[in-house]
Parts: sequence; structure tokens; C-alpha cells
Amino acid sequence: MNKILDGKKTSLRIKEEIKIKVDKLISEGHRPPHLAAILVGEDGASLTYVTNKVLSCKQVGFKSSLIRLPESISEDELLKEIKKLNVSEEIDGFIVQLPLPNHIDDEKVLLSISADKDVDGFHPENFGRMALNMESFIPATPFGIIELLERYNIDLNGKDTVIIGRSNIVGRPISILLSRKTKIGNSTVTVVHSRTKKLEFYTKNADIIVSALGVPGFLKGDMVKDGVIIVDVGITRVKDSSKKKGYAIKGDVDFDSVYEKASYITPVPGGVGPMTIASLLLNTLKAHKKSIA
Amino acid sequence: MNKILDGKKTSLRIKEEIKIKVDKLISEGHRPPHLAAILVGEDGASLTYVTNKVLSCKQVGFKSSLIRLPESISEDELLKEIKKLNVSEEIDGFIVQLPLPNHIDDEKVLLSISADKDVDGFHPENFGRMALNMESFIPATPFGIIELLERYNIDLNGKDTVIIGRSNIVGRPISILLSRKTKIGNSTVTVVHSRTKKLEFYTKNADIIVSALGVPGFLKGDMVKDGVIIVDVGITRVKDSSKKKGYAIKGDVDFDSVYEKASYITPVPGGVGPMTIASLLLNTLKAHKKSIA
Repeated sequence: MNKILDGKKTSLRIKEEIKIKVDKLISEGHRPPHLAAILVGEDGASLTYVTNKVLSCKQVGFKSSLIRLPESISEDELLKEIKKLNVSEEIDGFIVQLPLPNHIDDEKVLLSISADKDVDGFHPENFGRMALNMESFIPATPFGIIELLERYNIDLNGKDTVIIGRSNIVGRPISILLSRKTKIGNSTVTVVHSRTKKLEFYTKNADIIVSALGVPGFLKGDMVKDGVIIVDVGITRVKDSSKKKGYAIKGDVDFDSVYEKASYITPVPGGVGPMTIASLLLNTLKAHKKSIA
Repeated sequence: MNKILDGKKTSLRIKEEIKIKVDKLISEGHRPPHLAAILVGEDGASLTYVTNKVLSCKQVGFKSSLIRLPESISEDELLKEIKKLNVSEEIDGFIVQLPLPNHIDDEKVLLSISADKDVDGFHPENFGRMALNMESFIPATPFGIIELLERYNIDLNGKDTVIIGRSNIVGRPISILLSRKTKIGNSTVTVVHSRTKKLEFYTKNADIIVSALGVPGFLKGDMVKDGVIIVDVGITRVKDSSKKKGYAIKGDVDFDSVYEKASYITPVPGGVGPMTIASLLLNTLKAHKKSIA
């Protein structure tokens, strides 16, 4: 049996599905969905992320706009740019790539994005709607995890789930989603974090573990039970002179020892990562549907 | 040692503190904080709840307005009333007493309340802000629980917490609050619910249990460990011919058997209930501060 939850393959399938929908929309006389991305400054990793998002838009027939702003931009000027996107009838959704320069208040920027165009799902109104089981944009990483589990027909109903990490963008939202009274949900969720004392009491009991800690190789085979389902959200660069780039991407999970015991497991890379971009596209498609409704 | 977490006494102390602040505000030339409550229809229990809230306002020197609307009011008319309160400069915060008649969409009503005046903390924007650790109105019941734990100097840091129930107004928000990286938080939280299979695995390990299930006497002494801290949010009317009213109020906890093992426990009535109204007053005071800032 193949134990791999293949995010790469699944994300390609989702992109194909989106492409078919976009072609249909266009044949019906609608303009294509349009995602904009604001990138402030010259950070290399941020540029790579944003470029990947833009390329993915192209693959599925979306229009995309990359708005590059100088590191020195003032908070007020950035807020003005966001306001333009909020009211633009040609843009369905947009993201502001983090991190922002230190002189800019992340929270203020986040709150200035119209909740209707917040395809990253980071605005508190979207977060609250998600938690209260209302229609909303779900943040890309947790959304990608849900999609992956759903497409592998993984039944969470009544299962014991452990979330490692309580970040606003992964741990907290996925903990809520997997506990909600919904199809991919209804599990008993424990959130463990830096202050947790009996980590293994929880991980050894878990049917499903989602790790979003950012510590390479943290979760080892002797910390989990046979048959566990593993979702590894960690993506940490670890020095590796055998690689052309000089580093390898490592997940939170010590893959070899955990693989032996797992019934399903996401690889890193090729697991949750590709699903995240697919989810951003799904959110943009959803925003577009609202705008043409 | 007295094991009782006395919500009645604590709420009285909070009201005294609020009264002092209100007197000071007025002596400084400000108008008093003003809470409005909308009550639709003639439901007896709802009228009792709202009346208690209005009375509490009086005790602390707040102005209050009770707006009674007929059962037959249309959704549109109700939304118009809410709009008036949203823009009124004389009202700091308001609540719409639930439940609403069947022909009115609760969610639509909830979303129409300005997040700045949503002293019940039910609007998704407030919920999201709470979850993301931003400044917000916290729903009254979970806020009351936090206040009670704080005033008894209960340290949750690194403790194992179990929340029984995942409702939008108690279980879900308190599960987030007690897990956040904050003073009254930082515990390892598990949310158990109707689909949970190994309930006692969690309750027997718990240092703190918050029960918000609504099943009288559900949690028994043999389901908890020695030294557990118990917060009982259940308030169910149970027939009792020995009482003048014909019923008694019962919590989720089988008090006598759990009391033996607990290090702290909230009684029902006189525990979480009175704290809830005190929290509504604290939220209104906070809204007033914003309006005069």
C-alpha cells in the first residue's frame, strides 16, 4: 500500500480542475479571475514565494499582477495601495506578502485589507467566520491540509487529533477546522505547544498528527502509535553540501522512523507545500465567483 | 481550605470596581456608559435575562435602554433598529437577546451589529481578533471564566485543560483563550464533544476541566483526578417539587462526587453565571472608553 499523501500530484489535479472552470467562465463571456500580490522590498525568499504564486495563476488561466514596492515605502503609502486594490473592480483578491519591513505595522496592514478580497484568509473577520462555521476564506495552508485529507478519503470523525504548534496561520486555524462539526472535522483535537509538559501522552494516543513547529526531525517514530496519519507542515532549510543550492528542505517529522508506523504521511517537500498554492487559487476562484454573481 | 470559586462574590467585587470607575468618569464630566438591549417577542426566560442585565447596569451607574420589539417584526425592520444603534453617539454597546423568532436569520442580524459596539463579542470580527490575540470584545461567558481564574490566581501555564463542548459562545472561545500565549492561558487544551470516543482518557488526565455541555450531573467524581480544577458552565432547569419555582438549576458536574477530588470548583448557581453579567458590564465600560477617547 502506498502511504504517501501526495500533495504535488493532488495540487496538479486541483489546478487542472480550476483550469477547466476558468475556461468555462471565459467561454461564458466572463473575464478571468485576477489575483494581485503586493511585495515590499527585496527579500529573496519572499520574491520566490510570490513568483511561484504568479506562475501558478498563469497555469490555471488566471490573470495576476505583481505589485513591487520599495523597502522604504511608508505605512501610509502602503495603505493607499491596498485601498486601491480594495475598490478595484478588476481584482478579485489580493495578498500582501509577509514579512513586511519593521517600520510597518503588520496588524494595521492586515486589517486594512477588505475581508471580501482577503484570499489569504488572515483578516480577523475571515478567521472568525471560519471558527463560527460561516462561509469564509480559509487560510491557504490549513485549507490545503483539509483538501488533501478529503481527496484521500480520510475519515476524521471521532478520531484523536494532535496539532503541534499554535500559530495564527497554521496551528490555530487547523485545530479549529478539524474539530468543527463538518465532514473533514469532528475529531477530538488537542493543541500542544512550547509550554506542553506531557507531549508524548498526546502524540502516542493520536490517530492524526499535524505538525507545524518548524523544528526539523522533531517528531520521531517512538513518539507515535502504529497506523497514525501524519501531516508535516514544517519547511526548514537545513545546510546540505550535497545539494546544488547548499541546503535541503526538511519537515518536522523524522521521516524514516515515522514512515514505518504511519498509515499515511505527507512528504517534505511535495506534501503540504504545493497544496498551499492550490488553496490560494481556490480562494481566488471563489472571490471571482462572488464578484460576477 | 475553601475550594469554591465564588462567582457571586467575585462579580460583586467587579461591579464595585466598575461603579468607582463610572463615578470618576462622571466627576470628570463624561456621560455614563450606556448599554442597550434589544428583546424581540415575549419569551419569559429571555425577559428575565435581559431584565437582569438592565438591573446590573443600574447597580454600577450605567445608563441602559431596553428596546422591546414585537414577535411579528420583520427582519428588515429589526435590521433598521440595529442600524440606528450602530450610529447612535449615545449608545456605547448593545446586545440582541437570543433566540430570535424563526422568520429572522440570526447570522444576518449578528453580522449587522457594528463590531465596535458588539459587547456580546459574537461578531466574527471580534471572534477572529480574539483568536488572533488582538484587542477585542471577548464573549461574556468565556471572559467571565478568565476573570474568575485570574482573581483566584490560578496558574494555567503548562497545565492540561479539557473543554467539554464546542459551542460558538462558550466551548470554542474558551478553548482558544486558555491555549493562547497569555497570562491566563498557555495551557494544553483538548476540546471534547459528542463524537469523542475516549472521553475519560482526557478528563482523567486534566488539571482543569471546563464543562459547557448542558447535561446535568454529566461529569462524575470517577472521571477526574485528584486536585482537578472544575469550571461548570452548565445551567439546566431540572424539575424539583421541593422548590418554590418547581425547578432547580443544575450544572454539568455531579457536585458532591467531584467536590471530594477537586482543588477548586465553581458552584451552580453562583459560579460562572454571575461572572457572565459582570463581563458584559466590563465590555460596555471598554466600549465607552473607546467612544470618549
